Amino acid sequence: MNDTSSRLTGPVRVVGAGLLGASVGLGLRARGVDVVLDDASPANLNLAVDYGAGRASDGEESPALIVVCVPPDVTASVVLAELAAHPDAVVTDVASVKVAPMAELEASGRDISRYVGSHPLAGRERGGPSSGRADLFVGRPWVVCTRPDVSRASVSLVEALVLDLGATPIEMNTVAHDAAVALVSHTPQIVSSLMAKRLSGSSDAALALAGQGVRDVTRIASSEPELWVQILGANAPAVVEILRAYRDDLDRVLAALGDLDAPGARRSLAEELAGGNAGVSRLPGKHGQDRRFASVVVMVDDKPGELGRLFTEMGEIGVNLEDLRLEHSPGAQIGLAEIAVLPEALQRTIDDLTARGWRIAG
Amino acid sequence: MNDTSSRLTGPVRVVGAGLLGASVGLGLRARGVDVVLDDASPANLNLAVDYGAGRASDGEESPALIVVCVPPDVTASVVLAELAAHPDAVVTDVASVKVAPMAELEASGRDISRYVGSHPLAGRERGGPSSGRADLFVGRPWVVCTRPDVSRASVSLVEALVLDLGATPIEMNTVAHDAAVALVSHTPQIVSSLMAKRLSGSSDAALALAGQGVRDVTRIASSEPELWVQILGANAPAVVEILRAYRDDLDRVLAALGDLDAPGARRSLAEELAGGNAGVSRLPGKHGQDRRFASVVVMVDDKPGELGRLFTEMGEIGVNLEDLRLEHSPGAQIGLAEIAVLPEALQRTIDDLTARGWRIAG
Repeated sequence: MNDTSSRLTGPVRVVGAGLLGASVGLGLRARGVDVVLDDASPANLNLAVDYGAGRASDGEESPALIVVCVPPDVTASVVLAELAAHPDAVVTDVASVKVAPMAELEASGRDISRYVGSHPLAGRERGGPSSGRADLFVGRPWVVCTRPDVSRASVSLVEALVLDLGATPIEMNTVAHDAAVALVSHTPQIVSSLMAKRLSGSSDAALALAGQGVRDVTRIASSEPELWVQILGANAPAVVEILRAYRDDLDRVLAALGDLDAPGARRSLAEELAGGNAGVSRLPGKHGQDRRFASVVVMVDDKPGELGRLFTEMGEIGVNLEDLRLEHSPGAQIGLAEIAVLPEALQRTIDDLTARGWRIAG
Repeated sequence: MNDTSSRLTGPVRVVGAGLLGASVGLGLRARGVDVVLDDASPANLNLAVDYGAGRASDGEESPALIVVCVPPDVTASVVLAELAAHPDAVVTDVASVKVAPMAELEASGRDISRYVGSHPLAGRERGGPSSGRADLFVGRPWVVCTRPDVSRASVSLVEALVLDLGATPIEMNTVAHDAAVALVSHTPQIVSSLMAKRLSGSSDAALALAGQGVRDVTRIASSEPELWVQILGANAPAVVEILRAYRDDLDRVLAALGDLDAPGARRSLAEELAGGNAGVSRLPGKHGQDRRFASVVVMVDDKPGELGRLFTEMGEIGVNLEDLRLEHSPGAQIGLAEIAVLPEALQRTIDDLTARGWRIAG
């Protein structure tokens, strides 16, 4: 957000004052936009108003833009109600699936040409209006679903909202959106949860050997089951398609591991692993693979202030810290900080940190 | 490493001068231990000697301890050769699987009571002697495989090596070891690789929506296929057992998603996800779940020095940085730094950083 003026005029109506609705309200209020809030729960609504996310609706406003921020399974019915109640407004929503609500809207037989679906790729672990943040969407992709029957002016209005909130609009149709999130969000969630489930029956001794790998694979397995049943359920066909292909690969791995002396078994295993290499290399800006930077691993004693001291001294040395990754071993007296710097600064970083008594581990 | 004296006396012989062998050599040399290196490749051996990992064997040494650091599939034969050539030495190895080499050793019919298998849970993405580091094992778990036919003195000698290298010895039998690494290392590798493989056929537009979740799940999918075929192949039965249970869960998810209106389908889905919650919560010191700390998310402009400035100012404020996680969105002008601090320091951190002009995102 380099300027503070808004691209939007007139009140924006936000329906649903949970995490996303409150964050939309807070972000727009920070831009000076008049935000009118509504929520089925008066308690939720009052809380969001108290937090400064907007003012309560008095039923007299004429919003040009309405943002529906309710759970996926009630999105379509709320969108229809808003379209009917505000015959001049453009209505968008923020649900994380787009095909199912769209099908429900089309099945209603009503005029939905003023509806433009959207989806901000943003969230927090905690929900509710008190978790809302004006900057929740800053720097995030925000999909805006275009359709032939929707005017460019309507799409532009929704994109003005997206830009006001600091996010990057990405135009896609609903089918492409749902296939994309099935791949980069919904299937990884299942894969991670099922791996984490395997850890349940294990011994503490076995889990003491866990390193960064299994931690990374299972991090998102701490997501809330109720919310995810709803998300996965609303995008089931797209998820099932990817998950079936995943299971076919898994069956190939199982077959190969079950009879390693069979002709081609080891080659089959190698091909599955190489397929993983190819896939992960396609992720833009993948963590730890940024070839613009060189990295140095510094050992940090596990006591208060040590990490802070390292960063302070990095500042004193005058080396720009481009990225950082921390690694802990439970029970260890030491942590490892992997620091990314520009390649030309690598030797100086190592020399200066060593001179200041830091131990370099790699 | 709080003291620099060694627990070992006399020369230690290291067979195999790759990443692990060179690192063992460098770590012991840093403690003043006499290290004798050997390698089937004279070029590898000379390189490791040049790097300071030890001296080349002259065939005249009488080592009390021999560390075999060769690939898993030749570990047993090298161990047997070393036991025969050095009738008074205790022989250990560092292979990442333990049951298969042990079975091969037992099948030889030779006296293997001086062999104590071990496995350091440490590694780097790059291999070879030039990647070796004296501190590679610092703070890592290092499994030492006990057996009824092995003397306590032999186990203690291997544990002295582990402690000398700054690692934490964990005693386990071979079967428990292989089951543990199948769970916390080998199965996660497959799960991650197969998820990453799904990304291969996707569009750039879909991958632009990728967030931290899928990045974390697929990070280890960049591992080297050749090495992993060997590791997985050597631990196939233990991996297959876990992977079959994983596939059963996957089939339950597929069945539920395929017919969500069937009685119990959504409940079945919720139970699989809740199983993931339970499993991930068992990981000791899991990243991002450490309840000892509170976290604050700071927005950092994507320009050189900004991250360094943040850490310098954290130091000036006097707040101890307990942990840190960075998040980038490709193409975004902003990154998010999630900083963990002690709960009692949270408000002060937010206030002081805000006063210094930092934007807090959560």
